[in-house]
Amino acid sequence: MTASQSRDTGPTTGEHRVTTGPIMGSSKVYRDIETPEGFTLRIPGRRVGLTDGGHFDLYDTSGPYTDDTAHIDVRAGLPALRGEWIRSRTPVNGADTQLAHAKAGTITPEMRFVAEREGLDPEFVRSEVAVGRAVIPANRRHPESEPMVIGKNFLVKINANIGNSAVTSSVEEEVEKMVWATRWGADTIMDLSTGKRIHETRERILRNSPVPVGTVPIYQALEKVDGDPARLSWEVYRDTVIEQCEQGVDYMTVHAGVLLRYVPLTARRVTGIVSRGGSIMAAWCLAHHRESFLYTHFEELCEILREYDVTFSLGDGLRPGSIADANDEAQFAELRTLGELTHIARAHDVQVMIEGPGHVPMHRIAENVRLEEELCGEAPFYTLGPLTTDIAPGYDHITSAIGAAQIGWYGTAMLCYVTPKEHLGLPDRDDVKTGVITYKLAAHAADLAKGHPRAQEWDDELSRARFEFRWKDQFHLSLDPETATAYHDETLPAEPAKTAHFCSMCGPKFCSMKITQDVRRYAAENGLDTVEAIQRGMADKSAEFGEQGGRVYLPLTERSG
Amino acid sequence: MTASQSRDTGPTTGEHRVTTGPIMGSSKVYRDIETPEGFTLRIPGRRVGLTDGGHFDLYDTSGPYTDDTAHIDVRAGLPALRGEWIRSRTPVNGADTQLAHAKAGTITPEMRFVAEREGLDPEFVRSEVAVGRAVIPANRRHPESEPMVIGKNFLVKINANIGNSAVTSSVEEEVEKMVWATRWGADTIMDLSTGKRIHETRERILRNSPVPVGTVPIYQALEKVDGDPARLSWEVYRDTVIEQCEQGVDYMTVHAGVLLRYVPLTARRVTGIVSRGGSIMAAWCLAHHRESFLYTHFEELCEILREYDVTFSLGDGLRPGSIADANDEAQFAELRTLGELTHIARAHDVQVMIEGPGHVPMHRIAENVRLEEELCGEAPFYTLGPLTTDIAPGYDHITSAIGAAQIGWYGTAMLCYVTPKEHLGLPDRDDVKTGVITYKLAAHAADLAKGHPRAQEWDDELSRARFEFRWKDQFHLSLDPETATAYHDETLPAEPAKTAHFCSMCGPKFCSMKITQDVRRYAAENGLDTVEAIQRGMADKSAEFGEQGGRVYLPLTERSG
Repeated sequence: MTASQSRDTGPTTGEHRVTTGPIMGSSKVYRDIETPEGFTLRIPGRRVGLTDGGHFDLYDTSGPYTDDTAHIDVRAGLPALRGEWIRSRTPVNGADTQLAHAKAGTITPEMRFVAEREGLDPEFVRSEVAVGRAVIPANRRHPESEPMVIGKNFLVKINANIGNSAVTSSVEEEVEKMVWATRWGADTIMDLSTGKRIHETRERILRNSPVPVGTVPIYQALEKVDGDPARLSWEVYRDTVIEQCEQGVDYMTVHAGVLLRYVPLTARRVTGIVSRGGSIMAAWCLAHHRESFLYTHFEELCEILREYDVTFSLGDGLRPGSIADANDEAQFAELRTLGELTHIARAHDVQVMIEGPGHVPMHRIAENVRLEEELCGEAPFYTLGPLTTDIAPGYDHITSAIGAAQIGWYGTAMLCYVTPKEHLGLPDRDDVKTGVITYKLAAHAADLAKGHPRAQEWDDELSRARFEFRWKDQFHLSLDPETATAYHDETLPAEPAKTAHFCSMCGPKFCSMKITQDVRRYAAENGLDTVEAIQRGMADKSAEFGEQGGRVYLPLTERSG
Repeated sequence: MTASQSRDTGPTTGEHRVTTGPIMGSSKVYRDIETPEGFTLRIPGRRVGLTDGGHFDLYDTSGPYTDDTAHIDVRAGLPALRGEWIRSRTPVNGADTQLAHAKAGTITPEMRFVAEREGLDPEFVRSEVAVGRAVIPANRRHPESEPMVIGKNFLVKINANIGNSAVTSSVEEEVEKMVWATRWGADTIMDLSTGKRIHETRERILRNSPVPVGTVPIYQALEKVDGDPARLSWEVYRDTVIEQCEQGVDYMTVHAGVLLRYVPLTARRVTGIVSRGGSIMAAWCLAHHRESFLYTHFEELCEILREYDVTFSLGDGLRPGSIADANDEAQFAELRTLGELTHIARAHDVQVMIEGPGHVPMHRIAENVRLEEELCGEAPFYTLGPLTTDIAPGYDHITSAIGAAQIGWYGTAMLCYVTPKEHLGLPDRDDVKTGVITYKLAAHAADLAKGHPRAQEWDDELSRARFEFRWKDQFHLSLDPETATAYHDETLPAEPAKTAHFCSMCGPKFCSMKITQDVRRYAAENGLDTVEAIQRGMADKSAEFGEQGGRVYLPLTERSG
């Protein structure tokens, strides 16, 4: 339903259609910022128009697709926003990574861009990147991306996984899923394709993605050896990584912490190894009875990623796949190894994130954050959920949103979404939207709990619209205006209901919000401070109020007359 | 979709149809328990049959409607399960409430029933009820209900609100909503009808409800005075309460904590007063400039409820309706008054619950529980959500499930569900199911975090089924087997897929769960302890494993050959 309500036009040719046009009630705006280097940064925003003529701007991840004035050609791809910035940069001791520049004290255009985007000081962004507490995933070969930052002291970000499997889906579907996911708020997307046309799918996604794109290179490497983990080798893997770096992948999941001696620790688990990459590397280790080539060749890997400024997302190959396996020896043994690898990567000026669980009951979530920060030098934590119970397949976007909101509050920098299809099948377009909206609200709940300086402005703006019965403003300020409007209109479709002082939930005589408005009206009539009005004026006013009792439920329009 | 998959038959006549038949993959079972008084208690359960011939029993709230052998006649109502127990009881100093008997050291059949239901000691139930830390809502005039307990040391319960409004819905729809809500796990339901035929709707619901039914009497009282709060009086209210007690309502929300001097405290709020009952009483207080009759006549009210053993649910009429208003002076001033009223009610041997918010950001949730326990003598806390952000209308079942799971973990005894239609309209049948399933998973996540002795058995059973690719067992053990099955079958409908060692999410070559099974197979082949097998045997086995690398992905059936 919500999908069909979006304009599915877009001047795209034949085979290739993507969703374009602004989100209901919003328009695309840009703030232009001049940099010392003479570049003009165009900071994107989603501007919600309000019925009183005012507006409220929101952080916007959707790229040009929601810009009515933009020309979209999926074949040509997006303009190279960062092209000039990259070309004009001079490396620092051979390194041209955000980390190298930050350490050298340089504020890159990317840092300035994300600072403006979040309303923070560019120098603060630089210092967070310099110490590794934040990363800006931005491959030099992906100049189309709009810079964004991932770190505990910034807005909590969310990732949407897309990608086909051998069983279903096509290149076109996956590109549309990317556009669709970023439309609703995905800060990054991961292409986890494991089926056919992996290279082509990724190419199309990268050239059209306004957000950083992550991958798990081992999936494609495995396809190259016909799905036999034992036949994997450093050479096959290295060439696959280089291929993906060249294409512009911004961050890569590397399961280099799965050591031979950790595999036995999973033997008595209820659900063993549930990470695809983790199981592949465990199979390789067992087959060769050696440490994985990801671990033994890690420094060479650092050199490759450094060349392109690709960010490591050190994968948790031994994450728990059930409540029973949460926080066990296998999981934390791997985390310690990821900590060692983090410091090696940073020494090579390569940015690092750390991936986390998985399935964890609420009372064991905090320990995951504490250990990750301690062992991995506060590298941004990037977690999947965690799911807080195993009993609700079909609703795991919710079991995991409960854990995601909490772990975000505790300091996790990015949340990998989970869709209703988790454990059951490949998500379709509607599942992707449900997953993204669910994770946006979880991330925002975490921003509120962390006390992010500006997070609550959004809640207050929407709540004021709700209290003043500005229904359209309430809908347009919400994460999903289409669904909010559709739900309201199911029972009260007529236009007058958009200004009515009630909805079908309570009906006209039981809407609670009017009473305070009456209280405030008395204050106005008495030219008094609201609270005083009630305290002093109430006694005298009570008689009159009594006569007017029935009028409590008259609409304001009549009252003001 | 899920709705249409339920058998919507039922031998019910003409106008009146309700959903009957077992939940997919389950059957109704009863455990018979003999009491010292010579009664036979039939403890209901939902038995999930497993493919290996075994079974797993779950707590069951659905009543006879899921019993294939039961004769359902909505006109006649359910059998009077508790009739004999009630008739045979002798009051304690004139009181025949669960609290009075518990204080006197008597274990009632109701206490025994709930103890068996939760696998706990009857004496423990009695002691929790005696000190007021738990309540068993069971009006003597509602003998059809199956006893259940609400308290922090028991399973977290959930309530589903039903009831029509002046705008929409009918008696028949509301009875079906009750059956539907309890089918999916509602532990109690509240009839919040404010439209026409309030008395008749409630009568039909009570005579057919296997769970306790709660109401907010002020709604019907307001209808009796044509919706003019100023015309409400103690007499009109008292007569309405008696009418509802006579019908069998098990607990009543009473907003007796809304004092005249608290109303001004809401004047500067972003969303003022959002409780319907709270706004009605505030309007009355302002109109008459007097304390509300609920407060001034509270002891008379206690005497009436005591007569029937109706439980107080002291309402939070000044709960926050937005993040901005959370934990403010108005909210906590009312909570202090509710604490005073709690002790008065207990002195009258009347059971008490305390209602809580509302809208609260995560970092302010814990304070609500701490204060409620301190001020209200650990009376069971019964909260609405709380919603952890205001920005997601259409998804408030999720924004609130995040808060509900946390507040349940902290000690809240019952969670009032929120549906996707919250703030937007009256929930329909599908919204009710979504709300109930969402709150069941939140309550279970809380049970896990609280360390409820048996909660994790369910997660482990389902996770074992998942790991062993027993798809049907995984579906049948889930909160919503119909939806889990439907989601899986969207991409892999064929019957063989129900035993396949993969799903469409990762495809056949990327299913991570097989590797541990291979590890375990080696152990078996070597007749060794699993872990030893890997540690000792791995070296010798590694060559063989290498040759067999491709076989890692063969189905177990072939392997076992």
